Amino acid sequence: MSHSLPMLYLSPEDVVEIVSQVGLSRCIGGIAKRIERDFLRWQEFDKSARVACHSRDGVIELMPIADEHEFAFKYVNGHPKNTAAGLPTVMAFGVLADVGTGIPRLLSELTITTAMRTAAMSAVAARALARPECRTMALIGNGAQSEFQAIAFRDLLGIRTIRVFDVDPTATAKLVDNVARHDLEVIVCNSTKEAVQGVDIITTVTADKVNATIITPDMVASGVHINAVGGDCPGKTELHAGVLERAAVFVEYEPQTRIEGDIQQMSPDFPVTELWQVLAGKTAGRNNASQITVFDSVGFALEDYSALTFIRDVAQECSVGKTIELIPSLSNPKNLFGMLQSTVKTAAKVEFA
Amino acid sequence: MSHSLPMLYLSPEDVVEIVSQVGLSRCIGGIAKRIERDFLRWQEFDKSARVACHSRDGVIELMPIADEHEFAFKYVNGHPKNTAAGLPTVMAFGVLADVGTGIPRLLSELTITTAMRTAAMSAVAARALARPECRTMALIGNGAQSEFQAIAFRDLLGIRTIRVFDVDPTATAKLVDNVARHDLEVIVCNSTKEAVQGVDIITTVTADKVNATIITPDMVASGVHINAVGGDCPGKTELHAGVLERAAVFVEYEPQTRIEGDIQQMSPDFPVTELWQVLAGKTAGRNNASQITVFDSVGFALEDYSALTFIRDVAQECSVGKTIELIPSLSNPKNLFGMLQSTVKTAAKVEFA
Repeated sequence: MSHSLPMLYLSPEDVVEIVSQVGLSRCIGGIAKRIERDFLRWQEFDKSARVACHSRDGVIELMPIADEHEFAFKYVNGHPKNTAAGLPTVMAFGVLADVGTGIPRLLSELTITTAMRTAAMSAVAARALARPECRTMALIGNGAQSEFQAIAFRDLLGIRTIRVFDVDPTATAKLVDNVARHDLEVIVCNSTKEAVQGVDIITTVTADKVNATIITPDMVASGVHINAVGGDCPGKTELHAGVLERAAVFVEYEPQTRIEGDIQQMSPDFPVTELWQVLAGKTAGRNNASQITVFDSVGFALEDYSALTFIRDVAQECSVGKTIELIPSLSNPKNLFGMLQSTVKTAAKVEFA
Repeated sequence: MSHSLPMLYLSPEDVVEIVSQVGLSRCIGGIAKRIERDFLRWQEFDKSARVACHSRDGVIELMPIADEHEFAFKYVNGHPKNTAAGLPTVMAFGVLADVGTGIPRLLSELTITTAMRTAAMSAVAARALARPECRTMALIGNGAQSEFQAIAFRDLLGIRTIRVFDVDPTATAKLVDNVARHDLEVIVCNSTKEAVQGVDIITTVTADKVNATIITPDMVASGVHINAVGGDCPGKTELHAGVLERAAVFVEYEPQTRIEGDIQQMSPDFPVTELWQVLAGKTAGRNNASQITVFDSVGFALEDYSALTFIRDVAQECSVGKTIELIPSLSNPKNLFGMLQSTVKTAAKVEFA
C-alpha cells in the first residue's frame, strides 16, 4: 500500500523521555499554566460530561472536548482491584484531531500524563482557593497519584511538610521512599485523624469504589482547603456530607460533578461554584481565612486537552516521538475501494448463515 | 524504560493485507455474520447514542459500546468538503478493551473496515426487509462507500444489476471502473429518477450535510426496499418525509436515529422498529410484497464492535499486525512515580504565571 496521513505517536517511554529532558516540576508547572489559560477560555469549548461504561469491578470512560480548532479525547479506566493483579488502577491514552477536517494528529499515552495533569489541576484550584502561605498538607491515599500531588503542592503552593496515611502501609513506605529526598518533610501517620492534625490543606486520593467517609466534620479545622480527588464516579465518594455542608464547594464542570463527585450525595440544588469563574475573577473563591473550601475534583476533559496540547508541543520541541499510520492517504479520496481492488474475487461464493 | 502492556495494532496497510488474504467478499460476509450474531445479543450490550462534536464543516464522533467482556469504541469524522482537499470524507479508528481490567487490547484503523461494516449492515437489514429474489438496485451517491454496497448486495442479496447516479460524473466513472469487472451489470443513469426505474432496492449513500430530498414519493414503487445510509447526522437527510410516511421504517438504535436519521424530520412518535427485533423474530419485517420498507441507517456502535472483533480475530489467524506501546507496565502498579524518579530536581524553581 501507499501512504498514510502522518500522526504523531507518543509512547510511555517517549513521555518519560520528555519528562527527563524537561524535569517533572516544569512539566507539572507547564500543564498547570495551560489549564489556567484554557479554563479562562471556558466558553470557547464544546463541553459534555464524559461517557462512562460501568461494570462490576470498574469503569471505562471516554472524555471528549473541542474548541474551534482542536478536538481532544481521553480513554481512561478506573479498576481499583487491578493493583492486586499487578496492573495500574488507572490507564489512559488520548488523541488530538483537527476540528476542520477530522484528521487525527496525535496519539499519546496518558497514564503518566494524567498523573501530572491531575496534580496540576489540584494545584491550580488550591492556589485559587486555599489560604496564602500554606505549608503543611495531609495526603490521604498513598497510591500512584500521591507523589505527583506532593511535588505539585511543593512547587506551586509552597508546601514543606506532608502528613501521610494509607490503609496499605507498603503504599506509604513507597511514597516516603519516593519523595523524602525531594525537599519535603514527610510525617507518616497511623490514621487519617492523625494525618489531618494542624494542616493547611487536606488532599484525598483514595481508590476504593465505595461511598466512603474518609474525612468527617470533626477532622476539618476552620480555614482548611480540601482537595478531594478520589471521589470521581457514581458510588465513589470520600467526604462525609457534613464536611460539604460546612464548606464552600468548587467544581470543574457542574453537570459532570453532580453525577460523579462527592456532591453526588447532596441534593441537586446544593450550591457549588465552577472553578473557572473564580479563575476568571467572576466569583470570589475563599471569603475569609476561616472558611473551609472544598475542590470536589473528578477530572474534566478540558484538563486532558491542556495536557495533550502541552505534551504535543514539548514533544516537538524535544524531537521526541514517532509516526503512526492509522488513516489511509488516497490519491483519489472517493476511491477507497481502489485499495482493495485486487482483493475482489469474481463471482465469489460467500457463505452466510 | 521497561515494559508496556502488549496491544495489537492494525494499520490501514495491515487491513489491506488481511482483506487480500481473506478476500473482500468473505470479509464483508464475515462482518455481516458477526453483526447478525451480535444483534441477537442486543440486550447484553451497554448502549448509548454516540457523542457528536459538530462544527461548521463536519462532525467528529465517539461511539462506545460494551458487553460483559469487551468495550469497543470508534473515532469517526464526517467532513464532506474534505474530498476537495484530497482527504477522505470519513476517517476512523477504533479500540477494543477488557471490561474487567480496562486494559486496551487492540488499536485498529477503521476507515477501510467501516466501509466494509456499513455495507455488511445494509445487507443484513436488506436480507431481513427486502422482497426475496431482488436482482436490481439503484445506487445513488457513487463515493467511497458505493462499491462496498455494490459488492455486499451482489454477494448477500443476489443483486445482478445496479443503476447508478451521482451529481459528480467522475465519481460514477470511478464506480463503473471499479465494479464493472466483478459480475455486476452497471447501468449509468442521468438522474436519481432514472436510476430508480424498476429496481427492487434503492440505496442512498450521499455525503452532503444538508436536509436533502434525494428520494421523493413519486420515485418509490410499491414493494421497494430503501437502504438509506447517507442521512446520518442532524441536518443531514436524504428522504422526503412523504417517503417515510408511506413506508415501514426500521432503525438500528432508536434513541440515536431519532436525532441523526432521516426520521429526524418526523414527529417524535413516528413509528419505527429496531432491526434487532426483526432479526430475533420478535417482530415481523415486511408484511407483504407490495409494502415499502426503509432501513434508516445511521451507523451504530454495535456494528463497529462486530467489525473490530472480526478484524482482530482474522488478523490473529493471518498473523498480521504489530504491537504498540500505549500503557506502561509497572513492577509495582502503585509506583507510577518510580518511572520518573530521576526526573525530579531537588528544590526545583518553577515559574508559574
